[in-house]
Amino acid sequence: MSPAHHLTSATSRLTLFLLSFCVLCGSSLAADSTKPNIVVIFADDLGYGDLGCYGSPTIRTPHLDQMAAEGLRFTDFYSAAEVCTPSRAALLTGRLPIRSGMCGARRVLFPNSKGGLPPAEITIAEALKEKGYATAHIGKWHLGIHPGSRPLDQGFEQSFGLPYSNDMDARADLPKGATGSPNPPLDGWNVALLRNGEVIEQPANQTTLTRRYTEEAVKFITEKKNVPFFLYMPHTFPHVPMFASQDFKGKSRAGIYGDAVEELDWSVGQVLEALRREGIAENTLVFISSDNGPWLIMGDQGGSAGLLKDGKGSTWEGGMRVPGIAWMPSRIKPGVTSQLASAMDVFPTALALAGASLPKDVVFDGVDLAPLLFESKPLPERPFFYYRGNQLFACRLGEWKAHFQTQTGYGGSKPEQHEPELLFHLGRDPSEKRNVAATHPEVLTRIQEAVKAHQSKVIPGPPQLQ
Amino acid sequence: MSPAHHLTSATSRLTLFLLSFCVLCGSSLAADSTKPNIVVIFADDLGYGDLGCYGSPTIRTPHLDQMAAEGLRFTDFYSAAEVCTPSRAALLTGRLPIRSGMCGARRVLFPNSKGGLPPAEITIAEALKEKGYATAHIGKWHLGIHPGSRPLDQGFEQSFGLPYSNDMDARADLPKGATGSPNPPLDGWNVALLRNGEVIEQPANQTTLTRRYTEEAVKFITEKKNVPFFLYMPHTFPHVPMFASQDFKGKSRAGIYGDAVEELDWSVGQVLEALRREGIAENTLVFISSDNGPWLIMGDQGGSAGLLKDGKGSTWEGGMRVPGIAWMPSRIKPGVTSQLASAMDVFPTALALAGASLPKDVVFDGVDLAPLLFESKPLPERPFFYYRGNQLFACRLGEWKAHFQTQTGYGGSKPEQHEPELLFHLGRDPSEKRNVAATHPEVLTRIQEAVKAHQSKVIPGPPQLQ
Repeated sequence: MSPAHHLTSATSRLTLFLLSFCVLCGSSLAADSTKPNIVVIFADDLGYGDLGCYGSPTIRTPHLDQMAAEGLRFTDFYSAAEVCTPSRAALLTGRLPIRSGMCGARRVLFPNSKGGLPPAEITIAEALKEKGYATAHIGKWHLGIHPGSRPLDQGFEQSFGLPYSNDMDARADLPKGATGSPNPPLDGWNVALLRNGEVIEQPANQTTLTRRYTEEAVKFITEKKNVPFFLYMPHTFPHVPMFASQDFKGKSRAGIYGDAVEELDWSVGQVLEALRREGIAENTLVFISSDNGPWLIMGDQGGSAGLLKDGKGSTWEGGMRVPGIAWMPSRIKPGVTSQLASAMDVFPTALALAGASLPKDVVFDGVDLAPLLFESKPLPERPFFYYRGNQLFACRLGEWKAHFQTQTGYGGSKPEQHEPELLFHLGRDPSEKRNVAATHPEVLTRIQEAVKAHQSKVIPGPPQLQ
Repeated sequence: MSPAHHLTSATSRLTLFLLSFCVLCGSSLAADSTKPNIVVIFADDLGYGDLGCYGSPTIRTPHLDQMAAEGLRFTDFYSAAEVCTPSRAALLTGRLPIRSGMCGARRVLFPNSKGGLPPAEITIAEALKEKGYATAHIGKWHLGIHPGSRPLDQGFEQSFGLPYSNDMDARADLPKGATGSPNPPLDGWNVALLRNGEVIEQPANQTTLTRRYTEEAVKFITEKKNVPFFLYMPHTFPHVPMFASQDFKGKSRAGIYGDAVEELDWSVGQVLEALRREGIAENTLVFISSDNGPWLIMGDQGGSAGLLKDGKGSTWEGGMRVPGIAWMPSRIKPGVTSQLASAMDVFPTALALAGASLPKDVVFDGVDLAPLLFESKPLPERPFFYYRGNQLFACRLGEWKAHFQTQTGYGGSKPEQHEPELLFHLGRDPSEKRNVAATHPEVLTRIQEAVKAHQSKVIPGPPQLQ
């Protein structure tokens, strides 16, 4: 029985009256401060080195830098996978992609894939909706287009964006103009824009996508300021093909990639500004990260992993260590943390903030980050597992990382087995240049034990990416 | 005739009285605010990626990060050379090392070198001393040990530190304990510590060098708070061999290299704190940079150039693009600039701040940064020339960089000629991965013209490094 049931009828009426009054005068006081809002912004293919606060010399990101200065910036934050679909599945479920079957040889979902995020998987949206949260998906989905897997099937009350990556549905075969694009550079890029599952524009005018996502997000925040809400905003950019709106195109010294990231930065600024304007910034946790490392083979349209090795598609650090910033002005003390955390921690963190307990009979791979975020306490040491598809390629324990297999994210590469494993100390050697396996056999043993314990218990879900 | 000469005798007496009063009560008002103090802190082999504010994931530099947040951080700041001696000569003279003869096949001065910074060269210390500045050198010198080239011969009224790099004078031939070191790890490292040219300790106890440099600097600042001063503080670390004092040793997750940089960070914090405590922070320009990129071959004792290519010894960006932060709370608006600047700009900037005109009949390669520092104005476009020894290896113009020759900073490498030149766009491709010479012949032509104009006028000075 919830505490509310103990209220007398008179008290209940008073409460109702006060609530109505607050709603009428538009005060944010009506929002339940025990249920903070949660905003998750997820960039696509943004590299570890692509933000000013992560050392980019060329891309200007003043809003994200300011967000980092006011919040907690992670130096060791990981996506749960080295490519898009599994990474997003893991973020929304708090579970390794292998458990949901959202990984495999085909790497990501394609328009002709039969599978998708299984209905049985519980997303953050579903869990929070149950606690009275308004939920919205604004941006790229890429977790399935079939019934049961789509945004509205997975706990989101509203959805606006692309069903998958902006380079899918390409129609390079068509002659110029045949896609009916109002904008010549869009010729050949034929991905559709959907609202609540219905196509509203095809091809999507990608030049204005970031701006429109932002407008949708600001509208959602404004409309829902008096109820707790969960906003999931997985941006389309900086995934190829790269587009930016008129205000940003040609403005960055880093070229069109920089333009796209600088517009993303503007977008984050708009979201934070909307939260402030509506008086709910203090009661909102905003988290931003990226789904995987930069797509290095894309040349001028690819980002940078900074000093980290390799990028998207690889389990070297550059493939999975990504920017991560948490912001909640009332509760997070500004700083930088080198504590290891991952996108899978967002689920337990969000649920704990909302006062919800984790669903039973579900194995979670993330932990509640509250002690770190709100009390600057270190988290308990835990291994981090680097999967490529459904194969475990590497494992990190403390500062040590062992690679059992490696494969570059560049095209046409083959996996390389390592026996004995490669071992790197990520503190002294974050670029993974100096294999020290020979001098630290005891570390390898500890990591092997952690892997064995993990593998003996993991139950792979039915494969979804065929 | 200066305006002061128009003062009546009574006013003059009043002024004198007030000045005396200020001196007596120790007020910083006595310091001539038209002659700001200038502090130049120069790290040794610190890489572009080694500070938190430049994206280091592993080294904690809260004081430098704070300095950057309060000052102007450069994304495109260059040392004037890819190794130590020429870089320092250029910093102190505002001139390319080739003009002073402080570069050549031997790369740097060694203990047995005959040459040194020629007496005819004018250093910042000499120029400012003439304008009434107190001057001090605290740290590594490495510009010559013979008469005419030493700190006291080159405008410094006081000097404390090492004559050259901390790995010189090595005595690996001696049995353990033979160097008389009080500290076993110092065995074999036999460099001397000098005060005003006299050896006061040999081997220098390197574990406490950063701490002692800092104490000397704070003492100088405190003693000279009522006169304008120039403090040149070229640190010994993070040059190998790496040492840190007890308070820092073993504290960084980045190992001994991180310990050394974190102690350097502490030192900068102490210097800024002393300036604040004495009430002269508002009237002091503090500049920090590094003499060249990280010494990558040193493994765990070498730093990181972040996303830049190669390191110390190379004219790839990682060899010469270094951290650069300018701080002057009263006059510099906090921010990040992508304007190109170099260590050779410090001389003209310092002289202009001190109200001194540049010496006549001397060719300078730097410019006064005042418009950028104090008014956020862009500097005029100018080519930047990357020399390796006395050979021009590359040239940057705007965002474009052409390599005529390249050579890695790793040992045993050979120079590689490029005809046609390699061409990179440093905005879109800061890591110099994608040669675009074939598609931009007009850019190469402009750069070739800039180089021709430069080379037709450069007069090499008598070689000093034999």
